Amino acid sequence: MATDPAPKPDSLETFDNPNPTRDFEIRIDAPEFTCVCPKTGHPDFANMTLIYVPAAKCVELKAYKLYIHAWRNVGIFHEAVTNRIAEDLIAALQPKYLKLIGAFHAHGGITTTVTVEHKDG
Amino acid sequence: MATDPAPKPDSLETFDNPNPTRDFEIRIDAPEFTCVCPKTGHPDFANMTLIYVPAAKCVELKAYKLYIHAWRNVGIFHEAVTNRIAEDLIAALQPKYLKLIGAFHAHGGITTTVTVEHKDG
Amino acid sequence: MATDPAPKPDSLETFDNPNPTRDFEIRIDAPEFTCVCPKTGHPDFANMTLIYVPAAKCVELKAYKLYIHAWRNVGIFHEAVTNRIAEDLIAALQPKYLKLIGAFHAHGGITTTVTVEHKDG
Amino acid sequence: MATDPAPKPDSLETFDNPNPTRDFEIRIDAPEFTCVCPKTGHPDFANMTLIYVPAAKCVELKAYKLYIHAWRNVGIFHEAVTNRIAEDLIAALQPKYLKLIGAFHAHGGITTTVTVEHKDG
Amino acid sequence: MATDPAPKPDSLETFDNPNPTRDFEIRIDAPEFTCVCPKTGHPDFANMTLIYVPAAKCVELKAYKLYIHAWRNVGIFHEAVTNRIAEDLIAALQPKYLKLIGAFHAHGGITTTVTVEHKDG
Amino acid sequence: MATDPAPKPDSLETFDNPNPTRDFEIRIDAPEFTCVCPKTGHPDFANMTLIYVPAAKCVELKAYKLYIHAWRNVGIFHEAVTNRIAEDLIAALQPKYLKLIGAFHAHGGITTTVTVEHKDG
Amino acid sequence: MATDPAPKPDSLETFDNPNPTRDFEIRIDAPEFTCVCPKTGHPDFANMTLIYVPAAKCVELKAYKLYIHAWRNVGIFHEAVTNRIAEDLIAALQPKYLKLIGAFHAHGGITTTVTVEHKDG
Amino acid sequence: MATDPAPKPDSLETFDNPNPTRDFEIRIDAPEFTCVCPKTGHPDFANMTLIYVPAAKCVELKAYKLYIHAWRNVGIFHEAVTNRIAEDLIAALQPKYLKLIGAFHAHGGITTTVTVEHKDG
Amino acid sequence: MATDPAPKPDSLETFDNPNPTRDFEIRIDAPEFTCVCPKTGHPDFANMTLIYVPAAKCVELKAYKLYIHAWRNVGIFHEAVTNRIAEDLIAALQPKYLKLIGAFHAHGGITTTVTVEHKDG
Amino acid sequence: MATDPAPKPDSLETFDNPNPTRDFEIRIDAPEFTCVCPKTGHPDFANMTLIYVPAAKCVELKAYKLYIHAWRNVGIFHEAVTNRIAEDLIAALQPKYLKLIGAFHAHGGITTTVTVEHKDG
Repeated sequence: MATDPAPKPDSLETFDNPNPTRDFEIRIDAPEFTCVCPKTGHPDFANMTLIYVPAAKCVELKAYKLYIHAWRNVGIFHEAVTNRIAEDLIAALQPKYLKLIGAFHAHGGITTTVTVEHKDG
Repeated sequence: MATDPAPKPDSLETFDNPNPTRDFEIRIDAPEFTCVCPKTGHPDFANMTLIYVPAAKCVELKAYKLYIHAWRNVGIFHEAVTNRIAEDLIAALQPKYLKLIGAFHAHGGITTTVTVEHKDG
Repeated sequence: MATDPAPKPDSLETFDNPNPTRDFEIRIDAPEFTCVCPKTGHPDFANMTLIYVPAAKCVELKAYKLYIHAWRNVGIFHEAVTNRIAEDLIAALQPKYLKLIGAFHAHGGITTTVTVEHKDG
Repeated sequence: MATDPAPKPDSLETFDNPNPTRDFEIRIDAPEFTCVCPKTGHPDFANMTLIYVPAAKCVELKAYKLYIHAWRNVGIFHEAVTNRIAEDLIAALQPKYLKLIGAFHAHGGITTTVTVEHKDG
Repeated sequence: MATDPAPKPDSLETFDNPNPTRDFEIRIDAPEFTCVCPKTGHPDFANMTLIYVPAAKCVELKAYKLYIHAWRNVGIFHEAVTNRIAEDLIAALQPKYLKLIGAFHAHGGITTTVTVEHKDG
Repeated sequence: MATDPAPKPDSLETFDNPNPTRDFEIRIDAPEFTCVCPKTGHPDFANMTLIYVPAAKCVELKAYKLYIHAWRNVGIFHEAVTNRIAEDLIAALQPKYLKLIGAFHAHGGITTTVTVEHKDG
Repeated sequence: MATDPAPKPDSLETFDNPNPTRDFEIRIDAPEFTCVCPKTGHPDFANMTLIYVPAAKCVELKAYKLYIHAWRNVGIFHEAVTNRIAEDLIAALQPKYLKLIGAFHAHGGITTTVTVEHKDG
Repeated sequence: MATDPAPKPDSLETFDNPNPTRDFEIRIDAPEFTCVCPKTGHPDFANMTLIYVPAAKCVELKAYKLYIHAWRNVGIFHEAVTNRIAEDLIAALQPKYLKLIGAFHAHGGITTTVTVEHKDG
Repeated sequence: MATDPAPKPDSLETFDNPNPTRDFEIRIDAPEFTCVCPKTGHPDFANMTLIYVPAAKCVELKAYKLYIHAWRNVGIFHEAVTNRIAEDLIAALQPKYLKLIGAFHAHGGITTTVTVEHKDG
Repeated sequence: MATDPAPKPDSLETFDNPNPTRDFEIRIDAPEFTCVCPKTGHPDFANMTLIYVPAAKCVELKAYKLYIHAWRNVGIFHEAVTNRIAEDLIAALQPKYLKLIGAFHAHGGITTTVTVEHKDG
């Protein structure tokens, strides 16, 4: 099965934090994340939840949605994809705090959730 | 599409804290907040939850309800409106503590929640 | 509309703590609290939750139920009545810890919860 | 308060039934319907559910969404608006069967649901 | 304990059916009904649900709310009050169909629901 | 283990139907029914739901509650006790319709529900 | 992988219907049914729900539980095992009515429910 | 955006009905159906529920799962794809009864469910 | 009404901790606890939840179940019985940590939960 | 009753941590764990939840699933099996942190949950 390459991190467009003088938190739930198992070629589904405290930059919502869609035909494991998306977001936003939770649907009666957390400094 | 100006902060009427000798918490859920996306003109909906510990002043419930209604036809983004309402309330109440949580309904399969927190002093 | 006076705090009968040598917690949910809005005369409804750690005295359950019933036709605001009941209980029980949560039903699309907390000493 | 006129029925664009040889049912939930109370000027909210069996025509989803949005600043009562939308849809689609359920959010502790049903011929 | 007389049926104001050429159904949930037990004087609570198909007349929502409030201090049993309200509504509306469901909260571990149904002609 | 005799059917006191000219339904949920397994002596628990349309007589709620309590230490199987209570009620009320549903809690991973239905004439 | 033979139908012990003069329904939920996929050897799990109206005989609960346990290491498909258990029960009980619902847990993102229904005569 | 062709109906492998002498029902929930909107190229998601009464043939579960996966990159509208899958299944199984329910996730605040029903003969 | 004496603490049989080199937690929910109100003779019901970290001894599950059953006909108040069971368990197990939560069902619209906590040393 | 030996710890295959420079958490829910009671031979069921922070190694998902399946016919008590699985995982992964929660289904009205926690160093 032919799969796509991973989306480019620079597709994660940003905009300036609208209230840089006060820390606040943004949470974005993407319940329709899907990619492909590199072993079997079967689709995997996850609720991908991003929580972060912006520094200078916020992620643009529409660009983030398209970045999430771009994983649709990429072959990659649960642990790897959650870490990869987290690293892309940390590089793009350099946030004060970030947590990414990939809650994958059950596979053979087993449900996996991968959580990556980043604290600035 | 013509949109309305943001509501005036001084429409947030207050009354004297009925028990100033003891800290207590007030939580007000407004599940019917709505404003307009400045890009597309489509309506946005949110559950706007305010939690605060009053100092000298409490917000009057009916005035708060009308202030929330007044955002109905204003064009403004999720991150901006939640921060703006929080700043209006902090200015009007000068509370000991305040948290405002704007939990917006899904847009294109993506759900956004913005949380602003303020601690006195 | 004629309303009733507030119930007398001394109707809150107590009994001796059955295990004074060990701290323990008592939680009493009264989901059928009702009083009257002093502005409009319309009824207000709340789930009134009491949590406390007794010192020498516990509140007698039947007396507490009748005390809660006695607010039925009293005209008083959300913030005031929750603080008033908390102060009555603190005076009657002198507890090590007490929290009272008045979770009022929605009014014009707005839901209010008032939480009063007391720590001994 | 200035309100808008009702949306035009002919904004309900249609497309040809993709399977006219077999009866099937389409259900469209619009949980973010909002209009304005003509008495008080306060906003009203409803989950507007459409269920129909198409004859020659189906309603185009994007046009239906914009038609629903167009009621946002119209002043009209619950019973009237649900009947009006049903009549607009019946005229545009001439369906074999149609049901419209307007489930309005609570108002002063009272929740109203209006259900209009149409059977062809 | 002094209780109030039952509310007058003629307080149930009506308005003209806005779509008399098509049968439709109106459902009104009043989750905050309360009256008083004539034996013990303790308050009773119920979710009172009205479902009807109007003929010439619909019940006015605000008048219905006040009629429901007016039972607050009336001493009457579950079976009697549900039948009484149903008969008042049938007299005032002469509807094509009517159902009234009084779902009372638990009393001593026992929950009672009374359902009255009326079909025209 | 000594068990009690079954409660006497004549403890099911009745009162006159308050609206004999119109059929209506009464539902009484008793979620705290308990008796004893005659084989093992272990307690059994059930939600016992009674639904009936009265003819001349209704069952008095307090008497019914005490009748339900009176099964507490009686040794009897699920199928037998549900049929027995149904027959006692049919004899006492001679209702137009009656259904009794005994929904027993799980026993060794198996949950049993027994439903008895009676139609007059 | 070695699997067990199917349980013997005559292990389904019965007892005499305690109320043969009135039709009633018995429902038995067995949420811990498990057998083995004959292709892959992986375990399958189901909630097996039996609903029946007894004629002369009822199934003994403990024997039924052991019969259900006896499928634990049998290799058999969803459609086959649900039909097989239904036929065993029909033969043992000769009931007036019987329904067996095998609601299997998800397998590769697909959930299967098999329902067999039998009416006497 | 390049999309895939629709899957071939003959990929729906079947096996012989294991109990052809008794009608029974099979329900298969596929909550991870996904295809692509032909207008915008954005992914669509649905819970696709199949309910049928087999005649001579049942659909093989693994083949059905792969057939469902094969729609992943096909560009097609909600109403069309649900009818298309139903027709493929009816052709492959010639069942006594079949219902297919495509419950699509929300799109711009609007949720669509398409239901196709087939009765033999 | 004659009631039983409280169960003997020494009926709480124990077994040796199977992993004494590592702290771990055991939680046992007993949702079918029942005793009798000493004032009214009416039954009381509770979900009795035990959470503990064993030292040398664990409580044997079957003995604990029978101990819980033995309170069935004992007349005792909510606050007293929860403290009494906690003290019996602390004496029998000498655990590193123990919490007992007695969550009683509603009585006259009032729900009581009693929580006793013990820390070793 | 003949039971199987416990699965071998070395069947827990591992793979290299894909992001060793940042701590992250993996949670794996196995809701279909089953073993056998060594006293009665009856099956036991549990939701076995593993939460860990990997050091150099992660557990391979398919191998973990087969290891869980391998307990199916082993006779062992709740407290023992949860501790045993935790020790096997700690030995195989030498994780920075690990928690294993065995939430067993109810047995005779009593539900048991065993939680084992491990912190590195």
